[in-house]
Amino acid sequence: MVRFQGHFETKELDPFTLEKAYEALKFEHEGRSVGYYDVSEPSLLLCEEVTSSLLKNTVYIDTIAVVGIGGSSLGLKAIDRLLRPKTPHAKKILYFENSDPISIAYEASKVEFAKTLFIVISKSGGTVETLSIFKYLIEKFNITLENSPQVLIVSDEKSVLSQFADHYNLKHFVIPSNIGGRFSVLSAVGVLPLMLAGFDFTGVLNGAKSFVERFWERKEEHLLRKAAFCVANGQKYPINVLFSYSDTFEEFGKWVVQLWGESLGKRNRRGERVGLTPISLIGSVDQHSFLQLIIEGPLNKTVTFMSIEHSRDELMIPEISLPFLEKSDFVNGKSFNTLINAQCKATMQSVQQSGVSVDEIIWECIDEVSVGEMIMYYELLTSAAGALLEINTYDQPGVELGKQILQKYFQN
Amino acid sequence: MVRFQGHFETKELDPFTLEKAYEALKFEHEGRSVGYYDVSEPSLLLCEEVTSSLLKNTVYIDTIAVVGIGGSSLGLKAIDRLLRPKTPHAKKILYFENSDPISIAYEASKVEFAKTLFIVISKSGGTVETLSIFKYLIEKFNITLENSPQVLIVSDEKSVLSQFADHYNLKHFVIPSNIGGRFSVLSAVGVLPLMLAGFDFTGVLNGAKSFVERFWERKEEHLLRKAAFCVANGQKYPINVLFSYSDTFEEFGKWVVQLWGESLGKRNRRGERVGLTPISLIGSVDQHSFLQLIIEGPLNKTVTFMSIEHSRDELMIPEISLPFLEKSDFVNGKSFNTLINAQCKATMQSVQQSGVSVDEIIWECIDEVSVGEMIMYYELLTSAAGALLEINTYDQPGVELGKQILQKYFQN
Repeated sequence: MVRFQGHFETKELDPFTLEKAYEALKFEHEGRSVGYYDVSEPSLLLCEEVTSSLLKNTVYIDTIAVVGIGGSSLGLKAIDRLLRPKTPHAKKILYFENSDPISIAYEASKVEFAKTLFIVISKSGGTVETLSIFKYLIEKFNITLENSPQVLIVSDEKSVLSQFADHYNLKHFVIPSNIGGRFSVLSAVGVLPLMLAGFDFTGVLNGAKSFVERFWERKEEHLLRKAAFCVANGQKYPINVLFSYSDTFEEFGKWVVQLWGESLGKRNRRGERVGLTPISLIGSVDQHSFLQLIIEGPLNKTVTFMSIEHSRDELMIPEISLPFLEKSDFVNGKSFNTLINAQCKATMQSVQQSGVSVDEIIWECIDEVSVGEMIMYYELLTSAAGALLEINTYDQPGVELGKQILQKYFQN
Repeated sequence: MVRFQGHFETKELDPFTLEKAYEALKFEHEGRSVGYYDVSEPSLLLCEEVTSSLLKNTVYIDTIAVVGIGGSSLGLKAIDRLLRPKTPHAKKILYFENSDPISIAYEASKVEFAKTLFIVISKSGGTVETLSIFKYLIEKFNITLENSPQVLIVSDEKSVLSQFADHYNLKHFVIPSNIGGRFSVLSAVGVLPLMLAGFDFTGVLNGAKSFVERFWERKEEHLLRKAAFCVANGQKYPINVLFSYSDTFEEFGKWVVQLWGESLGKRNRRGERVGLTPISLIGSVDQHSFLQLIIEGPLNKTVTFMSIEHSRDELMIPEISLPFLEKSDFVNGKSFNTLINAQCKATMQSVQQSGVSVDEIIWECIDEVSVGEMIMYYELLTSAAGALLEINTYDQPGVELGKQILQKYFQN
């Protein structure tokens, strides 16, 4: 369970705004133009399929190598990191993302081919990093593609990558065409690698499902108010900070940054540039880095504080008093979890006192259901903000030019 | 060697601005109020001392456990990450930073006590995370403090932590009082852990030294122009993005974020809130995340592109043409390094075409000298921007309130 509290001040909002956002999402949902709202049901079926067949055929596997970038890796990594402490027996997952040779060589050095399952993920099917790395792995490990039980493909139904999979008779799984890359982690993109690694992905899906149901029943209105606040104050507060108090949120923060940044940074109907700049911070580390800027710098940010009420590790700060260092004894005998949560509260209070708008998200603990809830929360929040900005939340036309220029570099 | 090119447009700048910044830094330097400008000489002596004595007495060590946060860890991690591929024999360094119990337990599980040297770093000497983790390690590994050869202390000369070190007769090393935490990586903070791990820190210091000498000789004026541009356009472009094309820049980016954010986010002489918001991105990964926002979102950002001309890994994209995937064949036979650099160039061009101000930093390769140059570059850039913002670049008064509130939480 996740609690949402200490919301942004929304008294001044036109109440019609919330209706506008809700109706826009409902329209996308009912018209099936946007598919993630309903992704849990088919994904639960896919989980069953994975459990009943694929899992049994891959018992020899101890490593999963995911080849994918952006929407094909960020969400996976987020869930992997969050649930790993609760699922220590899960198989190792290696991520081949960047075209950085140092990283590729390093990850490849960890692959023992006979025990590795390669999952190639690309929504469009044409991602140059993904395909280049895939070719590198084919050569390095001498992969025979025809009928290979060690290569799975996840892509759009009619993409070139799916056609390639058919050609070699490789198992392939579909990302529905109405689910964009950055909204796809609850589809086959997440199901395949995470179920096969041994995570309880059904729990994640159930969490997401119950959250979106509550949203349709108007029981999560705080989400609409937050989206409305961020959009209404977008000029004043162009930067939205997510300040998460646990290292395990690092990849989740990156996933949120992609979702919020790439979805909302657009030209609106009138051709005007709109968008909100997301920043992900980790507490308490970034109290020693970015916090000063939030507190005394320009008032151009909102801050969402996120914390975990109950940690899995009840590590204690010993009752040791060191000579000359007695000033820090006030935390003796407390748990580190108590300390980090108190740091979150204290920082939130000081940020608030400096005049910054803050809200708070508290995970009771990190479990599958909460992970699913929070994924759905951020996807809905993004869709609601996009609707109010009057943009297409689901495309990314701005990155095309760079791809064309890239091709030209190599043609010359 | 590092090259700086494609600078921000600074035609409209008052030429006096550059003089103002230069003179301010020279004043800090000559008055010795700011010590990092001259840190290389004493640090080179310290390197000799480490080589001639400490290194010989710690041959049994295979792991260095750094206990420190913020300015006491970010710079270290940046250099460790950048030089690790070039220094594969370097000893493992574990970082105990955050009060997050999951991370502490995980790092502690990697410690084999008999082979580990603990280096506790805190400029003020009173950092609650650092001292609490230190106590935890003392208890967990039953550390006898008196005369321990396995515990080193790095702190301000007269801090409580230095007094503690004296009390137990622990070796301790001084961070000069005129060098703030986030400007301290070239002092004992960096020398001790990195020399003892086996990195060539003298090369880093020599790089830094030659860069600052060129700066004083007015041979690095581009730095002053950049600082002046960022400050003059701070209202229009409140966000400064560093877009680095290699995963190995990840920690370097975090170090830059702390330096820029915490130094410049201040109230100026007139009590006005000033500051510039730094964001660190990694290419090509973040082309699939944040780029859309830069290109089509509000024009409120500058972007610095950073790349490595020659990588250590000449990993090639094989000449394999896969059926249906021929569109990606345009990079066949090229190195991944060529691909990632072309992605950097192509993205830069597309960002520029969208109306965003960009500049470019090209590392010929990642070596010790370049690392030193770039650390000094960013420190000088920050000092110059701070001088033009008319703030105290070196304090962080905004984070005190949170610390007081934290203490109160535990007193009740």
